[in-house]
Amino acid sequence: MGSRAHIEDVLRRAFALAANGPARGLNPQVGCVLLADDGTVLAEGWHRGAGTAHAEVAALAELPAGAARGATAVVTLEPCNHQGRTGPCAEALIEAGVARVIYSVDDPGDSSSGGAARLRAAGIDVEGGVLRAEGEALLGDWLQAARLGRPVVTVKWASSLDGRAAAADGSSQWITGSAARLDVHRRRAAADAIAVGTGTVLADDPSLTARDADGGLLPSQPVPIVFGRRETPADAALRRHPHEPVFADGSDLPAQLADLHGRGIRSLFVEGGPTLASAFIAAGLADELLVYLAPVLLGGPKLALGELGIASIDEALRLELASVEQLGDDILVVARPVKGH
Amino acid sequence: MGSRAHIEDVLRRAFALAANGPARGLNPQVGCVLLADDGTVLAEGWHRGAGTAHAEVAALAELPAGAARGATAVVTLEPCNHQGRTGPCAEALIEAGVARVIYSVDDPGDSSSGGAARLRAAGIDVEGGVLRAEGEALLGDWLQAARLGRPVVTVKWASSLDGRAAAADGSSQWITGSAARLDVHRRRAAADAIAVGTGTVLADDPSLTARDADGGLLPSQPVPIVFGRRETPADAALRRHPHEPVFADGSDLPAQLADLHGRGIRSLFVEGGPTLASAFIAAGLADELLVYLAPVLLGGPKLALGELGIASIDEALRLELASVEQLGDDILVVARPVKGH
Ligand SMILES: NC(=O)c1ccc[n+]([C@@H]2O[C@H](COP(=O)([O-])OP(=O)(O)OC[C@H]3O[C@@H](n4cnc5c(N)ncnc54)[C@H](OP(=O)(O)O)[C@@H]3O)[C@@H](O)[C@H]2O)c1
Ligand SMILES: NC(=O)c1ccc[n+]([C@@H]2O[C@H](COP(=O)([O-])OP(=O)(O)OC[C@H]3O[C@@H](n4cnc5c(N)ncnc54)[C@H](OP(=O)(O)O)[C@@H]3O)[C@@H](O)[C@H]2O)c1
Repeated sequence: MGSRAHIEDVLRRAFALAANGPARGLNPQVGCVLLADDGTVLAEGWHRGAGTAHAEVAALAELPAGAARGATAVVTLEPCNHQGRTGPCAEALIEAGVARVIYSVDDPGDSSSGGAARLRAAGIDVEGGVLRAEGEALLGDWLQAARLGRPVVTVKWASSLDGRAAAADGSSQWITGSAARLDVHRRRAAADAIAVGTGTVLADDPSLTARDADGGLLPSQPVPIVFGRRETPADAALRRHPHEPVFADGSDLPAQLADLHGRGIRSLFVEGGPTLASAFIAAGLADELLVYLAPVLLGGPKLALGELGIASIDEALRLELASVEQLGDDILVVARPVKGH
Repeated sequence: MGSRAHIEDVLRRAFALAANGPARGLNPQVGCVLLADDGTVLAEGWHRGAGTAHAEVAALAELPAGAARGATAVVTLEPCNHQGRTGPCAEALIEAGVARVIYSVDDPGDSSSGGAARLRAAGIDVEGGVLRAEGEALLGDWLQAARLGRPVVTVKWASSLDGRAAAADGSSQWITGSAARLDVHRRRAAADAIAVGTGTVLADDPSLTARDADGGLLPSQPVPIVFGRRETPADAALRRHPHEPVFADGSDLPAQLADLHGRGIRSLFVEGGPTLASAFIAAGLADELLVYLAPVLLGGPKLALGELGIASIDEALRLELASVEQLGDDILVVARPVKGH
């Protein structure tokens, strides 16, 4: 059936197959290779997106009935155990008479996990966790979002070195320079969705698109999301966004994030303003912080972050610095809340 | 009388002589070399501190009367032209019959400058600005302070990434880590004086000493200065400082800084708190900013900088970043206000 090195090579082939599937949306990228006893490839498959066959089923479908008996299935993710739109893959592998299953990453889902146990109960030889780091990297935000039950949240703000988001009269245009702004747009394009509060919508009428230096739309656009009770004007710029905007009143952020996750949003870029950013942080819903610090002092009352409900220094929200870099004249600090705080 | 290279070598010798004098206090470090026509050294001198002979006079004093006739004086600073405690050096050089004067840095003083013009008027061949950058580096803060007519001011604060100096209840101990605190103490030791407002004195009872990692006093200690009208308690820690504290009510910062300058304070390290730091910045009296950013979020009302009198973003105080570095877990940003703002 082949050496360890052979199995790992086959798993890497499965990673490559997985990458053929859609990198966004509800379902993960998964690849599967079926091997004969002598290590030769019988069939390959990958998942083409929600509502279509899972990778294991796609690979099995390549073979005539009975041809997978005694085979080894090499899969990037633990075979699922739930009756979704396509039936549990664990059952399909059992029915096909597969003798051995090797996979990389454990299924993080509440309803879909348990596939390995189901396979073992059916007498199949199962090994998980092979090349786990590579497998996790392939799954990216899908995996973290599945573990959290909500999108991975990045909270971004731009402030003066003294922590102000705007001058006293509210003016804030071009606090940061063009390199910082381009960086923001690049990161917007990498996110599934982008959120602002109604305060920002009403004050700035943002388009919530990801644009290049010339103002042209980048190929990938995040879904615009507005949090708040107030009405977004009918002629708001974000209504002309390539994606239909999503509106949520923000009264229950965890539930509303779970809902966005259920719509296939894996990553959410929270652009502000200060009230919404503070609410996400105070609720422990910020996984990553991007702080663009402009070399400028403003003083005054317009703070980049407001109330966090922290009374004493012992309750401070401790962060871990991931990186500190200069972007043009600005400083970008990327940090993550330290767990347990 | 020697080539250009020879003159520069002699000037470097004068720099080395200057460095024998005291690096702190009212007067600059100055060195002088007198050269014979053939380029050989006749005499050397340096300034030993306020109230003692200037470098030129010290060098002339090494020679018998008449022996400097026709000589070249190579000096690190333009010979002074004012009747201080020691008489103008320009007159002493004229009287001694020196034929040529070469110096590095122009005298920045209002009352003391004009020496080069006085010498030229007496028919002496004068060249200034030789190795100016080296000459200026030697003079350090003395030069900038003389130009400003006040000490060079560094304003330091430590804040959370969201610009807070303390939590809501005022607690702030150890916002920043030990590397940042050691860096602050090292910079305190390098300053002539250290200032706080009465608010900080009353809240924190700081010792205002410069200490090493074990809490031991560093060899050089800044003079402690308290700004504010309120009384500093008789048992305040800063009253046990190795230097006598200076008290100023802070009602006229420019005048009170000029007064400190008149006492020989070349550099002032403003440690805070927020009210005093903001007052220095708003008055345009901060030459350098040191911002220690801790990887922590606090929210709440205790801002590291308060009101700066800036209404609109066009009035923002623009800074130039001198450096951004990580100190342990903290970030140190060194910046300077952009002139013309
Ligand atoms: N420097 C920056 O990075 C940056 C970024 C964006 C915006 N801004 C500036 O920020 C200013 C707007 O500030 P802002 O704080 O009013 O804007 P905001 O945070 O965009 O909007 C605040 C509003 O969000 C709604 N909201 C929804 N869920 C919430 C929750 N869980 N908790 C609290 N509020 C929730 C509330 O509106 P309802 O009352 O409608 O429910 C609240 O009033 C603008 O001037 C803009 O230019 C700066
Ligand atoms: N994070 C940091 O880097 C840092 C550093 C130091 C202190 N702190 C914290 O800051 C807090 C104290 O804050 P604070 O702002 O009250 O302290 P502060 O700035 O030290 O003191 C403010 C006082 O300075 C006096 N003052 C003198 N000249 C002034 C001028 N030109 N303009 C305005 N005020 C002038 C006034 O006192 P009079 O009424 O007596 O005239 C004023 O009330 C403490 O909790 C301390 O722990 C933080």
